[in-house]
Amino acid sequence: MTQLQNVSIIKKANIYFDGKVTSRTVLFPDGTKKTLGIMLPGEYEFSTDLKEEMDILAGKLDYKLTGQDWKTIEGSGVFYVPANETFQLKVHTTTDYCCSYLNE
Amino acid sequence: MTQLQNVSIIKKANIYFDGKVTSRTVLFPDGTKKTLGIMLPGEYEFSTDLKEEMDILAGKLDYKLTGQDWKTIEGSGVFYVPANETFQLKVHTTTDYCCSYLNE
Repeated sequence: MTQLQNVSIIKKANIYFDGKVTSRTVLFPDGTKKTLGIMLPGEYEFSTDLKEEMDILAGKLDYKLTGQDWKTIEGSGVFYVPANETFQLKVHTTTDYCCSYLNE
Repeated sequence: MTQLQNVSIIKKANIYFDGKVTSRTVLFPDGTKKTLGIMLPGEYEFSTDLKEEMDILAGKLDYKLTGQDWKTIEGSGVFYVPANETFQLKVHTTTDYCCSYLNE
């Protein structure tokens, strides 16, 4: 799916890490949401509330989920983070992503 | 208007200047489009095809239209760039913007 259709988007950006990580929030008619974001090179730690699907659209990064080894995505790939967990990222090149927040 | 409603958004980001300027394209039912973007500190030059409305949502920057003096926006503000022109920006802090492409 190259477009998110029939959605609303919050104009104001979400800005983290002094602008090195930014995203826009997209709201769907069924009440779910996604964020479309950009991460510049750097090391970051994030925490989840809901389960998250991190769909990497372009870029190169390493990610580490709690209790697991570091893994690498280059170009595109998907990983899932459980609810209420912390995960670490080492972003090597400008990375474009779509994060889905999953109620389950 | 804090949300853009009943729109489609192209998932893939537009990435310029090694990721220091990025945006997402939002498509409206009437065929018009806007981009929602982030600019990190730096100096940039852009060219227009259509007339553009640059709505600064947050940040601080100087802008210079062809044949005019430098002007400053801090916090929020709007400027217009005619079609088929070049304009210059000096971005001082992470800047969040909404660009509308105007057919006129």
